[in-house]
Amino acid sequence: MKIAPRSKLVFIGDSITDCERARPVGEGLFGAVGKGYVALVDGHFGAAHPGHAIRVVNMGTSGNTVVDLKARWQTDALDLKPDWLVVMIGVNDVWRQFDLPRQTELHVAPETYGRTLDELVTRTRPLVSQLVLMSPFYIEPNRSDAMRRRMDEYGGLMRQIATRHGVPFVDIQAAFDGVLAHMHANAIAWDRVHPNHIGHAVIARAFLAAVDAL
Amino acid sequence: MKIAPRSKLVFIGDSITDCERARPVGEGLFGAVGKGYVALVDGHFGAAHPGHAIRVVNMGTSGNTVVDLKARWQTDALDLKPDWLVVMIGVNDVWRQFDLPRQTELHVAPETYGRTLDELVTRTRPLVSQLVLMSPFYIEPNRSDAMRRRMDEYGGLMRQIATRHGVPFVDIQAAFDGVLAHMHANAIAWDRVHPNHIGHAVIARAFLAAVDAL
Amino acid sequence: MKIAPRSKLVFIGDSITDCERARPVGEGLFGAVGKGYVALVDGHFGAAHPGHAIRVVNMGTSGNTVVDLKARWQTDALDLKPDWLVVMIGVNDVWRQFDLPRQTELHVAPETYGRTLDELVTRTRPLVSQLVLMSPFYIEPNRSDAMRRRMDEYGGLMRQIATRHGVPFVDIQAAFDGVLAHMHANAIAWDRVHPNHIGHAVIARAFLAAVDAL
Amino acid sequence: MKIAPRSKLVFIGDSITDCERARPVGEGLFGAVGKGYVALVDGHFGAAHPGHAIRVVNMGTSGNTVVDLKARWQTDALDLKPDWLVVMIGVNDVWRQFDLPRQTELHVAPETYGRTLDELVTRTRPLVSQLVLMSPFYIEPNRSDAMRRRMDEYGGLMRQIATRHGVPFVDIQAAFDGVLAHMHANAIAWDRVHPNHIGHAVIARAFLAAVDAL
Amino acid sequence: MKIAPRSKLVFIGDSITDCERARPVGEGLFGAVGKGYVALVDGHFGAAHPGHAIRVVNMGTSGNTVVDLKARWQTDALDLKPDWLVVMIGVNDVWRQFDLPRQTELHVAPETYGRTLDELVTRTRPLVSQLVLMSPFYIEPNRSDAMRRRMDEYGGLMRQIATRHGVPFVDIQAAFDGVLAHMHANAIAWDRVHPNHIGHAVIARAFLAAVDAL
Amino acid sequence: MKIAPRSKLVFIGDSITDCERARPVGEGLFGAVGKGYVALVDGHFGAAHPGHAIRVVNMGTSGNTVVDLKARWQTDALDLKPDWLVVMIGVNDVWRQFDLPRQTELHVAPETYGRTLDELVTRTRPLVSQLVLMSPFYIEPNRSDAMRRRMDEYGGLMRQIATRHGVPFVDIQAAFDGVLAHMHANAIAWDRVHPNHIGHAVIARAFLAAVDAL
Amino acid sequence: MKIAPRSKLVFIGDSITDCERARPVGEGLFGAVGKGYVALVDGHFGAAHPGHAIRVVNMGTSGNTVVDLKARWQTDALDLKPDWLVVMIGVNDVWRQFDLPRQTELHVAPETYGRTLDELVTRTRPLVSQLVLMSPFYIEPNRSDAMRRRMDEYGGLMRQIATRHGVPFVDIQAAFDGVLAHMHANAIAWDRVHPNHIGHAVIARAFLAAVDAL
Amino acid sequence: MKIAPRSKLVFIGDSITDCERARPVGEGLFGAVGKGYVALVDGHFGAAHPGHAIRVVNMGTSGNTVVDLKARWQTDALDLKPDWLVVMIGVNDVWRQFDLPRQTELHVAPETYGRTLDELVTRTRPLVSQLVLMSPFYIEPNRSDAMRRRMDEYGGLMRQIATRHGVPFVDIQAAFDGVLAHMHANAIAWDRVHPNHIGHAVIARAFLAAVDAL
Repeated sequence: MKIAPRSKLVFIGDSITDCERARPVGEGLFGAVGKGYVALVDGHFGAAHPGHAIRVVNMGTSGNTVVDLKARWQTDALDLKPDWLVVMIGVNDVWRQFDLPRQTELHVAPETYGRTLDELVTRTRPLVSQLVLMSPFYIEPNRSDAMRRRMDEYGGLMRQIATRHGVPFVDIQAAFDGVLAHMHANAIAWDRVHPNHIGHAVIARAFLAAVDAL
Repeated sequence: MKIAPRSKLVFIGDSITDCERARPVGEGLFGAVGKGYVALVDGHFGAAHPGHAIRVVNMGTSGNTVVDLKARWQTDALDLKPDWLVVMIGVNDVWRQFDLPRQTELHVAPETYGRTLDELVTRTRPLVSQLVLMSPFYIEPNRSDAMRRRMDEYGGLMRQIATRHGVPFVDIQAAFDGVLAHMHANAIAWDRVHPNHIGHAVIARAFLAAVDAL
Repeated sequence: MKIAPRSKLVFIGDSITDCERARPVGEGLFGAVGKGYVALVDGHFGAAHPGHAIRVVNMGTSGNTVVDLKARWQTDALDLKPDWLVVMIGVNDVWRQFDLPRQTELHVAPETYGRTLDELVTRTRPLVSQLVLMSPFYIEPNRSDAMRRRMDEYGGLMRQIATRHGVPFVDIQAAFDGVLAHMHANAIAWDRVHPNHIGHAVIARAFLAAVDAL
Repeated sequence: MKIAPRSKLVFIGDSITDCERARPVGEGLFGAVGKGYVALVDGHFGAAHPGHAIRVVNMGTSGNTVVDLKARWQTDALDLKPDWLVVMIGVNDVWRQFDLPRQTELHVAPETYGRTLDELVTRTRPLVSQLVLMSPFYIEPNRSDAMRRRMDEYGGLMRQIATRHGVPFVDIQAAFDGVLAHMHANAIAWDRVHPNHIGHAVIARAFLAAVDAL
Repeated sequence: MKIAPRSKLVFIGDSITDCERARPVGEGLFGAVGKGYVALVDGHFGAAHPGHAIRVVNMGTSGNTVVDLKARWQTDALDLKPDWLVVMIGVNDVWRQFDLPRQTELHVAPETYGRTLDELVTRTRPLVSQLVLMSPFYIEPNRSDAMRRRMDEYGGLMRQIATRHGVPFVDIQAAFDGVLAHMHANAIAWDRVHPNHIGHAVIARAFLAAVDAL
Repeated sequence: MKIAPRSKLVFIGDSITDCERARPVGEGLFGAVGKGYVALVDGHFGAAHPGHAIRVVNMGTSGNTVVDLKARWQTDALDLKPDWLVVMIGVNDVWRQFDLPRQTELHVAPETYGRTLDELVTRTRPLVSQLVLMSPFYIEPNRSDAMRRRMDEYGGLMRQIATRHGVPFVDIQAAFDGVLAHMHANAIAWDRVHPNHIGHAVIARAFLAAVDAL
Repeated sequence: MKIAPRSKLVFIGDSITDCERARPVGEGLFGAVGKGYVALVDGHFGAAHPGHAIRVVNMGTSGNTVVDLKARWQTDALDLKPDWLVVMIGVNDVWRQFDLPRQTELHVAPETYGRTLDELVTRTRPLVSQLVLMSPFYIEPNRSDAMRRRMDEYGGLMRQIATRHGVPFVDIQAAFDGVLAHMHANAIAWDRVHPNHIGHAVIARAFLAAVDAL
Repeated sequence: MKIAPRSKLVFIGDSITDCERARPVGEGLFGAVGKGYVALVDGHFGAAHPGHAIRVVNMGTSGNTVVDLKARWQTDALDLKPDWLVVMIGVNDVWRQFDLPRQTELHVAPETYGRTLDELVTRTRPLVSQLVLMSPFYIEPNRSDAMRRRMDEYGGLMRQIATRHGVPFVDIQAAFDGVLAHMHANAIAWDRVHPNHIGHAVIARAFLAAVDAL
């Protein structure tokens, strides 16, 4: 496994990360890490690597875009002094362009998305030894769907930023695409965004594979 | 308007019709006709044709397939002695094939759908002077999406039955396709099935246009 | 239609406008525009004029009088920079004179009503290109009922202000009177103020007709 | 007072009588007599005539018409063996004709109202020593309002039946008319049917005056 | 009646007055005057003296002692500018001495009670034309019960203050004693403090008799 | 201690015994023995006599009189095959005579009380090796209070039955009288019936003393 | 993987299996498979082996012992016609002996446990092609703890039955013992029975390893 | 009894003390002293020593460690001016080391525990005449369990501090050990920390014995 024993991991993102985590910090008793992929990752570490004593913190917040992440980056990411910081963001940046097309002030344009994410990475790299970027996704197999195309564009921006900074990039969209070869999107998420337990397992496995912890 | 004054209309279908209607019969005070397109139709009759005194009853039941309709046809359709009976069914018949692909006992195959709907029409025509069939739909513009293809197949079966029996057919799918030319599916329904107020207006308008009541 | 594509409309008023709209701004996902005539108008634009991409915002607040509107005019009307601002106010200004006759400090006298509404119109005209005034109403056919007489007086004041400023006036009271020729007030509103789905359709249609959007 | 010490009074009627009374019998601890005029009457007997030890039972049921009363007459009136039986019925018999005009099966026609009430009185007189009929009412001062006219017609039928059987008739409509000379209907009941505390006091006083117990 | 038309009455006291009144001011729609004797008084004025247009406000607060009244006297009594101010206080001042004997800081000693009440009366008389003091009470017929003795002592202090200032004193304890001759305390209040509907009628009648309004 | 190791005790009675015990049998996890004196007794056995492994079951039912006990005696007492059966009953038999004096059908007269209790004891003695009768009580020090006198009468009847059958009698009334010498009834129970934690400790101690288990 | 594509697996057991599964059958939309190890197994199949289309049903019922399983075996196991039936039972059989030691009728003795489990296996083997027995467990590392010793005894009985019938046995207790080498029992389950997300991952992994599906 | 009449006792600690006590101060009506051992102690004083008029206050706060006690010591202990201050603390200081081993910032090390407790005792002794320290405990009979060993270490530190300051020390752990000789830990507390009614009786009796009040 790439993660050293006793490491502290912080996952930050939107509702797909959040999943009813505890406030203000998603760590502790009574399901504080939430009910989604972060809990699956934490459970996996405890069950498969109990001797590593990995520490997992969930800092997802429903509805967040990269602009929202920036506003709470100091308190919710850096102040927690993670050894690993895992960022999955972009779904809401794109979604509002399609479900609320007339409320343009809620849209995060590609330029803003790319620039803001780059700022966060630049600011964080000197402070956190390991940073992981996980792509936003849309559980829609039709790549010519307008929102899928847009999501792929944002995923591409994240991939470029990861490459530029030499930071690992986990392609969650690709992981879902693999599963969509075998089942319809509706078997994972009615709204093609919020996954059921199968979809959260897809995300958790993609992350764990990326850190050689499966 | 094609509907005579003092006519009684019964709408029967699934959750898209239901929308929290009253039980056992969706008619009366305190929003008994539900919060969906049936309420829009009833409101339109009252506001635009107050002198017609049209009577509207909502008998939708969430989750229903055509097989479920058959089981309650006597009590929930025929016993109410409607002048007009409006049937919109088929979404769940198809949907379960995609969101619960392994639970095949929940799937209503095309043969079953066509045969059952035909039986209901045959049985009803001698008893109800006006019958209207409204197509099932999937608010998905990509016609090669597996579930959209399937839904179109069921819509086609309904259209054939309507033609065979000389009964009006309202193409709700086509109505949605017209709107999807201007906005993404997510602006109408996150799950591409349960419409917001815009989608319900689409259905209501399609019906009202079909009976020359717009 | 008189409304240009991509226009932004703000509706402001009392509980008849409010209908459980979202706070602080009644626009967005999950029924944010409320459950009343504003939602009907928004649904109509989306379904009948999808290419126009009209934007609708509900800023009604239950219990408001014109004096309450004045107190929140800057934040709740002007700051939203609407292209069209639609104002329906006066029901509570009058109602308290009849249901709480002894609490005179809650009554808005005709002088106050007229002067305040005039101030708001004067202040708004240079800032908002299109302003619409919609009359308060009482769903009471008996014009000699004391409260109906009073409501007509307030509607008359609004009409004068509209005329003076060259602003369109929508006579909602007249729209209800037309329907009351065919049904008793109790078929629209037990309290003769808060309409059911038929009454909200009456209001929506009156507005849509006034802007040639029906 | 016309009521002998230790008498048992049963009040039967609709929602105006009911007012959250206990089930199955509205008598006992914790507000079992409800929160309306029956509680006012019971409180008055206890406070003003404590030595009389009058017993009061509330058997009102919301939504009831005279047809509903007939269906439960044996268990809810006669089986309780009252010394006095007080009946106030007719509001719903009339109201449904105006708020749900198209659902004619819910309407109780004058013929049905008169015949059924007459049957109940005929059946009860040999069994209950004192019977009191209290008129239905509509808190609407405009006597040419269609529903007020209809209500007056039903009140007239009740009065004829009372006269024919030599049973006291309490004119609750007249009591309300007296108060309406001083305040608008909205100060008593927004829907002109369900009274506030002032309206319940009007009913209680009319009954108490009729039995010389004020 | 001693109360002039259009007078405004404010009732202030403890939980016996409060009875779920509205906040911050107990006046208005939807049962704002509470469910106790204040509502009975207001209902009586409306029903028996509708032409007087008496205005009633309930400012009772559960748990209050005379010390608590003093703390909110300006905002909750004087600022409301009543024509009549009716004060019923003292039950909690005494009760805590018996149900929480060890928490002496919650007890209001007779000296404090008398002095504080006197201060309030002194301060109020120049501002309010009519002041009424209503005795605290304990629905306990045994005058040698320790708490009854204590309550009588406080009632006596109030009576002296009323006499000294020439203000009417309503002996609620005496009113209850009259009723207790006919029924056990348990038929009015299990805890001998919070009355049921009979007990509230006793209080209301005592007040109404004192102002010649019965 | 008079109770042999591994004995099973069943307590049966009214709300004072019940205290939210589990249904249908008040024994087991999660506070199944309730929150009153039965729990205190069970806790005491576990803490002070852990080696005795005494088994405690709570079969109290709120509102019960001795007539209600009789109706459920087979299932709720005998079928449980207790080694000890402890009965505390009579409070409601008396209370209804005072709080609902007019509902005489709810009153259990002394004759009925004595006869029914005697029947239960006679029927039970051959089947249960140890029977204990615990007196009903009224936490009212004034022995000339009508309800206290009545309660003493019922306690006296129980004592006679206990003596006649040679069964232990625990005088709970006397235990409360002892405490009432030091504090007012209000410090134990506002309604003089349902004790707080001090009153439940009084009952538990009286029982434990009677079986030499304190 | 040992499990053939399109196999149907039914998991049956107690609260550790149940975890809020749907009723009457734990399969379908909206988390019907519960929130415990069954959901983890189902999610793993969907994410790691999507082409296998494995079908998973949760039939756990909180509080069950092997005796309870027997009572519902026909409807809840055999009637579902599983290809694989996975049974984890025994925790409550043992637990009640320690948390409710005096309620011996709730205890399932080793003889009953062994005999009943053997009956179920004998009855099931001809009908279900694959049967898996999973040991009960106690997350208590101290093997001389009385309850742990007892649980090991029951696990041993299950192992013998598995061996005798040639059925796979999954040693869940051993899986937990492995993790307990690295962390205290409190990090998995405060009550040492109901696991958190780490403990459920331990169970899921033990099962998946046993069928070569990890 | 060692406690003088009219003494005021304050109990401070964690969730074992708290048990739903009232806020901000756990004293007064309606179960303000909570539902745990403090209520048992208070009930015992009232029932067994009613003439002593002992005053009991519960200031436990769930989740507290000795560090949390220090932060609220002035307001929650000293400002209440107790005659006796009883402190039971340490369970959470230890527990977090075992249930959340990776969140080391939540752990209170032995040094911190000892030093902080010593500071509190030093600061309090001049102000409070009687101080009692009650040991933290773990209802785990296996003394080689890691958490039990740790708890014993903290109990030992407390004992040393008590000895050093000449303050009574109540060994609650020893009291539980005595009971554990007769029943499994699960019969007192599933999580071995939060006791049922038997466990609370163990604590109450240990305290009462220490002050000669049993």
